[in-house]
Amino acid sequence: MNNMQTKPGALSNDMMFMLDPLLRQALQEDIGSGDLTTTTIIPEDALGEAVIVANEGGVVAGGPIAIRLFQLFDPELTIQIFKHDGEAVRSGETLMTLHGRVRSILTVERVALNFLMRLSGIATATHELVSCIAGTHARIADTRKTMPLFRVLDKYAVRMGGGINHRFGLYDAILIKDNHLAYAGSIQKAVQLARRHAPHLVPIEVEVEQLEDIPEVIASGADAVLFDNMPPNVLTRAVEAVDGRLTTEASGGITKENIRAVAESGVDIISVGNLTHSVRALDISLDLHL
Amino acid sequence: MNNMQTKPGALSNDMMFMLDPLLRQALQEDIGSGDLTTTTIIPEDALGEAVIVANEGGVVAGGPIAIRLFQLFDPELTIQIFKHDGEAVRSGETLMTLHGRVRSILTVERVALNFLMRLSGIATATHELVSCIAGTHARIADTRKTMPLFRVLDKYAVRMGGGINHRFGLYDAILIKDNHLAYAGSIQKAVQLARRHAPHLVPIEVEVEQLEDIPEVIASGADAVLFDNMPPNVLTRAVEAVDGRLTTEASGGITKENIRAVAESGVDIISVGNLTHSVRALDISLDLHL
Amino acid sequence: MNNMQTKPGALSNDMMFMLDPLLRQALQEDIGSGDLTTTTIIPEDALGEAVIVANEGGVVAGGPIAIRLFQLFDPELTIQIFKHDGEAVRSGETLMTLHGRVRSILTVERVALNFLMRLSGIATATHELVSCIAGTHARIADTRKTMPLFRVLDKYAVRMGGGINHRFGLYDAILIKDNHLAYAGSIQKAVQLARRHAPHLVPIEVEVEQLEDIPEVIASGADAVLFDNMPPNVLTRAVEAVDGRLTTEASGGITKENIRAVAESGVDIISVGNLTHSVRALDISLDLHL
Amino acid sequence: MNNMQTKPGALSNDMMFMLDPLLRQALQEDIGSGDLTTTTIIPEDALGEAVIVANEGGVVAGGPIAIRLFQLFDPELTIQIFKHDGEAVRSGETLMTLHGRVRSILTVERVALNFLMRLSGIATATHELVSCIAGTHARIADTRKTMPLFRVLDKYAVRMGGGINHRFGLYDAILIKDNHLAYAGSIQKAVQLARRHAPHLVPIEVEVEQLEDIPEVIASGADAVLFDNMPPNVLTRAVEAVDGRLTTEASGGITKENIRAVAESGVDIISVGNLTHSVRALDISLDLHL
Amino acid sequence: MNNMQTKPGALSNDMMFMLDPLLRQALQEDIGSGDLTTTTIIPEDALGEAVIVANEGGVVAGGPIAIRLFQLFDPELTIQIFKHDGEAVRSGETLMTLHGRVRSILTVERVALNFLMRLSGIATATHELVSCIAGTHARIADTRKTMPLFRVLDKYAVRMGGGINHRFGLYDAILIKDNHLAYAGSIQKAVQLARRHAPHLVPIEVEVEQLEDIPEVIASGADAVLFDNMPPNVLTRAVEAVDGRLTTEASGGITKENIRAVAESGVDIISVGNLTHSVRALDISLDLHL
Amino acid sequence: MNNMQTKPGALSNDMMFMLDPLLRQALQEDIGSGDLTTTTIIPEDALGEAVIVANEGGVVAGGPIAIRLFQLFDPELTIQIFKHDGEAVRSGETLMTLHGRVRSILTVERVALNFLMRLSGIATATHELVSCIAGTHARIADTRKTMPLFRVLDKYAVRMGGGINHRFGLYDAILIKDNHLAYAGSIQKAVQLARRHAPHLVPIEVEVEQLEDIPEVIASGADAVLFDNMPPNVLTRAVEAVDGRLTTEASGGITKENIRAVAESGVDIISVGNLTHSVRALDISLDLHL
Repeated sequence: MNNMQTKPGALSNDMMFMLDPLLRQALQEDIGSGDLTTTTIIPEDALGEAVIVANEGGVVAGGPIAIRLFQLFDPELTIQIFKHDGEAVRSGETLMTLHGRVRSILTVERVALNFLMRLSGIATATHELVSCIAGTHARIADTRKTMPLFRVLDKYAVRMGGGINHRFGLYDAILIKDNHLAYAGSIQKAVQLARRHAPHLVPIEVEVEQLEDIPEVIASGADAVLFDNMPPNVLTRAVEAVDGRLTTEASGGITKENIRAVAESGVDIISVGNLTHSVRALDISLDLHL
Repeated sequence: MNNMQTKPGALSNDMMFMLDPLLRQALQEDIGSGDLTTTTIIPEDALGEAVIVANEGGVVAGGPIAIRLFQLFDPELTIQIFKHDGEAVRSGETLMTLHGRVRSILTVERVALNFLMRLSGIATATHELVSCIAGTHARIADTRKTMPLFRVLDKYAVRMGGGINHRFGLYDAILIKDNHLAYAGSIQKAVQLARRHAPHLVPIEVEVEQLEDIPEVIASGADAVLFDNMPPNVLTRAVEAVDGRLTTEASGGITKENIRAVAESGVDIISVGNLTHSVRALDISLDLHL
Repeated sequence: MNNMQTKPGALSNDMMFMLDPLLRQALQEDIGSGDLTTTTIIPEDALGEAVIVANEGGVVAGGPIAIRLFQLFDPELTIQIFKHDGEAVRSGETLMTLHGRVRSILTVERVALNFLMRLSGIATATHELVSCIAGTHARIADTRKTMPLFRVLDKYAVRMGGGINHRFGLYDAILIKDNHLAYAGSIQKAVQLARRHAPHLVPIEVEVEQLEDIPEVIASGADAVLFDNMPPNVLTRAVEAVDGRLTTEASGGITKENIRAVAESGVDIISVGNLTHSVRALDISLDLHL
Repeated sequence: MNNMQTKPGALSNDMMFMLDPLLRQALQEDIGSGDLTTTTIIPEDALGEAVIVANEGGVVAGGPIAIRLFQLFDPELTIQIFKHDGEAVRSGETLMTLHGRVRSILTVERVALNFLMRLSGIATATHELVSCIAGTHARIADTRKTMPLFRVLDKYAVRMGGGINHRFGLYDAILIKDNHLAYAGSIQKAVQLARRHAPHLVPIEVEVEQLEDIPEVIASGADAVLFDNMPPNVLTRAVEAVDGRLTTEASGGITKENIRAVAESGVDIISVGNLTHSVRALDISLDLHL
Repeated sequence: MNNMQTKPGALSNDMMFMLDPLLRQALQEDIGSGDLTTTTIIPEDALGEAVIVANEGGVVAGGPIAIRLFQLFDPELTIQIFKHDGEAVRSGETLMTLHGRVRSILTVERVALNFLMRLSGIATATHELVSCIAGTHARIADTRKTMPLFRVLDKYAVRMGGGINHRFGLYDAILIKDNHLAYAGSIQKAVQLARRHAPHLVPIEVEVEQLEDIPEVIASGADAVLFDNMPPNVLTRAVEAVDGRLTTEASGGITKENIRAVAESGVDIISVGNLTHSVRALDISLDLHL
Repeated sequence: MNNMQTKPGALSNDMMFMLDPLLRQALQEDIGSGDLTTTTIIPEDALGEAVIVANEGGVVAGGPIAIRLFQLFDPELTIQIFKHDGEAVRSGETLMTLHGRVRSILTVERVALNFLMRLSGIATATHELVSCIAGTHARIADTRKTMPLFRVLDKYAVRMGGGINHRFGLYDAILIKDNHLAYAGSIQKAVQLARRHAPHLVPIEVEVEQLEDIPEVIASGADAVLFDNMPPNVLTRAVEAVDGRLTTEASGGITKENIRAVAESGVDIISVGNLTHSVRALDISLDLHL
């Protein structure tokens, strides 16, 4: 607990409280009827020290999750953290050290690394995109294309990489796409239905594919507009048409190559699915010192 | 059910039985207190038809999972499958069609695609490696570096791409690494301890880093030997030293570029962590036809 | 299923999907190791017909929940619904009829009525307040003072009574109260912190206790302002000060007697805790016809 | 733990053990993907003190539940209790004080108060009825018309208000009503069936609507008789007819106005559904001291 | 469903409703990451017929449990039952036949038999004791020495063998033993405390070890008295001392050899722990016909 | 924790981690809505000491399970262990002592003893068979005929009695029986299918009923052969035919009388279903000292 950082957006006590049952399940998936290698070969009272080390540079995320996994399994392990979530790490640097029962360290190792490697991979990729658009007004956001059952973690990793979060699910924001519009008849009517029947504070965003729809979105009382798959030059005109009356978001076909041009359109938010659906894990390993 | 293929290794009834609770949880994660967009805008009795289409070529995996998610949420949806798991798909081809309540299709869409895109991404990447080593004796295997809580699915996708499965957890095979050896004193003693205390049928594999250790592994009565991070030329000598008396496995630092050389060493198994820890999702989308 | 109504806001398939595990638990709480009275006295094959009748007038809510409880326990029961959720019912009118195994009807009866009586009580009380302010601009909203584990149901009942829903939890909207302000230093800083670290679409509401704070709330970029415990005449001046730039909400000390005066202040939303924390159940009973 | 009172009937360790999973779920319902207000505005290391205060007079119940909720979320909170469950409290009096992380206090506040206000409301209402019949032989009992999933708590609150508990579910006592009698043919046969097939120690109560049935109930070997909706004068004759050979219970249409007359009939038990189905929450709030 | 018998005490719908989650878990325990033998060797579409046969004589119990396990896994299996629970079976007789997917039959076989063999073993042993005391007034009862998580099933099997059920847990009856008496000071005080604080209908039984205590038990208002480990001749005097004023129960050291002498003491109930703590499974097997 | 023994095969931390949820459920099954006897009669602050004593000789197993149950319910109990799992105990010897709240000891007593008595019964019976074959090459193994949901415990008890474990479920080894052979066409084809589609390290065992099949099993590449129900003299010839090329196992009809003859055939493994399906509980009780 005392190892957790205190900056806003960090992995907070309430997230831990929610995640505990799933973290237990993740351990149970790997342990099954027992860790045969460890329990047959390592003496129960063997104590040791391990370091978790980055084998390549990046941005760390998931440290408190790894710690929690070790401590759920063995509350007597002591862990010292050297790189907090959101910090940069270089190849060879130590993220944390662990002292205690060797059995516990070896049994939890793989599951802890699976989380740490994925989340650090997300934070690193987010950070790269954030760097690409440095100096522009735009911010990088995630999507709902996340690891099932662990969306809060994927989105947390995006925050640690310097990004921000889009809606967490179908329940906390309304995003009206072409299919919904087809059933409502018009943007105006769709927003009206949503406003009337949803909780009164819920934000409403409308996805548009052509510039001509922008005035109707503004008139509808929506809070935000999503431009899907627009090339940067069209996006610039779209942002001008909105003129600050709505939050603007660009999405679709974003790459490291074109993201700066997208950001320079003046759009507020750039949301990127592959931050979480196509993660390259950061190479991190655990070394046991006898 | 009648849409499932019957070849061995396919997603079977027993896997479905085990996965159901987790698939429900995955839907619940996204739905939360309700799908605000769909329930406020789409009439409850609106019926429609949707197609799930590949936007790039690859190998499909996860079709029955997507179907199950839709049917768990709404058993009245009818779904027709055009590409079975394990089949190649080209860009633009239809994987399946759905008929039924539009609300149900839209509410489940994202979670179904999240699974389908990841699993097809794994199958596609596995298939690429399998193609790289065509004609050799070697087979591609996965590791335990998988999506927490969904290891059986990640490993299933590897099978659909033509790979085979390594152990499913800490419970179904013994893999003795350097840390274990350090506590046991010798390969001989480690294997002896494992044989004495583990269930008598459990397979035992020993990881070695130098050729000199091979005779001791053979003498120990282990079933398999894992060569970690050996260059192809050393690997060739290692395989010769084993001379068919153990299953041989190569692991570590495998890339598309060097995998053929690794396979040509004569090794039985090549296990590749990034098949499942660094997945590029296959681009798949759902289109609703009004 | 075919008994469900289709107006927006009604109890939708996605809510049912989420509630099923809790409804099962509610039945299990009552059944325990078995319904001793029914299983020892009523023959297993006895069939019968029952009616669920209102013993006083009100607005119905929870019909689909009652149906679902009966059908979770015994899918072969056939149920016909006469009063849909949101409809007015007079004393003596039938809400629904059930046909099937007598054992099933008697075992589920109490749990089904417990939900139906509470939810109809909430809808009825909401409807009374809505009637009190008919013709004004204001709308009645609920709070988070709800039945633990069944918040979505309490809030659904409020909708059925003509009210609207405030946030569903701590996760889907930000409500900054005096305690938060004390830590942030100022309204301006509190809203700034929330905007920077929360998902970008999340709505922000600020609670104020004095008129002087209104300009700062407007300047802060908040979306809504909550006036806590203000008498109607002060509220009128508060609403004028906001002048449509924010959603306005009144809360605290609302009674049937003063609510019209509150509404006539021009406030947008009146939120009422006792709609859900102090429910008078509507008197509803089940009669079995042999 | 050391704050719990020791009188019999108090909230015991075994109840806590059973309730923990549900209390966690209640917190999870409110927290969802995270407490956005608290985690973005309140520093993680901010410490503070809070008091929980009654805003009106009544009888307290649920203190240990509130404490447990706070400590499940944050075991480092220290809590001092001033009013134990079952004690009377006056408006303005402090129930307990909390010291520790401000974030924890604010995140748990609403759920803790939701339980505390409901349970104290039940205890208070029970106590009022108990006072109404002071000096008579009768005792006030609850029913199964309780908050789903939290019946043990509702019934606990009734005990704290001076009442006693009726059966906890369908499994721990037999209550034969008209419907059951119709299938059995006679009181005699119904009791006989129940005796033969239920566990031999299970108590059997029979509901009667007319005085003529009393001799048959006595002859049947039942343990108790329930008089449903009988006016006090008829009840008096019923109690006389039983003459101490059975436990007698009155139920139905009980109000603060008529309960003394009912009690003076000499009946042993008066069971009152609205103690738990129509609860007026006691007004209790939490104040944070910076 | 249509295969279930209708006699009172039989495995009823409400028990099934409660057991389903545990039966699923029991299947999941055996299936784990998949039934490797069946899914690799048996074609998915292979259909077959199986019989479940008794290999020795006894009393059947658990048929509906076995059926439920098969149908939870594969609802398309059709099953015909030939011996209902509670019926005698001779060696070689068929209990039920199954038709459908061979994979489903083989995957569920072991778990279904594990339940069926245990429960039939309990029913058979109970029936033997019941036969031993035929013609006496006494009845055979079970205890709480049951298979963890499946007490309702063990007790059901006792009923199927002709026995009756003692309390189901710590919650539905009070059994005052010497330890409780020591803390209360006297039988009188212990019963008084229990009567005052427990639900008013709960039965109270007191365990005594010497005849001198019987008058105090009768005076205390207890409902039943348990004679622990009394030899038959002392038991006869104990029953005489009670003289019908309490239910009498004998327990401890009961064997097939001495049970008739115990029963002839006139005691009402003989409770036998080894009916459920030391079960000899009835030999039952499944044969597949190709 | 510090009470646990350290020999390999002992109840390890990873097993405890997996079992905790089930142990909680086992307690909840017995406690239900509360332990009425204890909470009404024993003061909450009463402290006491208890001993757990063997009433007959045997081999202990389940001590750490009993301890865990007590500590899950009341972490403040202190427990001292005198007989570790796997040790012999004589009648009258103390297994462990407990100090702490009397209520906690009495509430958990029955569930703790239910586990301890069963597991010690299994260990004792296993030890008896192990003694019968002392000096031979053979080892005693268990089967999948175990207590549902607690297979890891039953198998642990077998280890504590000196036996070894067969596969833990359908997922960690392949056992090809006659039914599978019938579908595959031949032993050769069945083993081939299993090898091709199962994880490459999974062991394969083939059951044969006649000596003629042995050469085909050897040729098939299987790892082990199971001789079902063969008399000792035939078994001797079978073992000779295998001549050390496969692990050999005998099963079916094993009794204390014939097991030595079976072992002297030279077979490697003798698996015995009734070790776990027909358990005689070891007589163990808890005595409270005031």
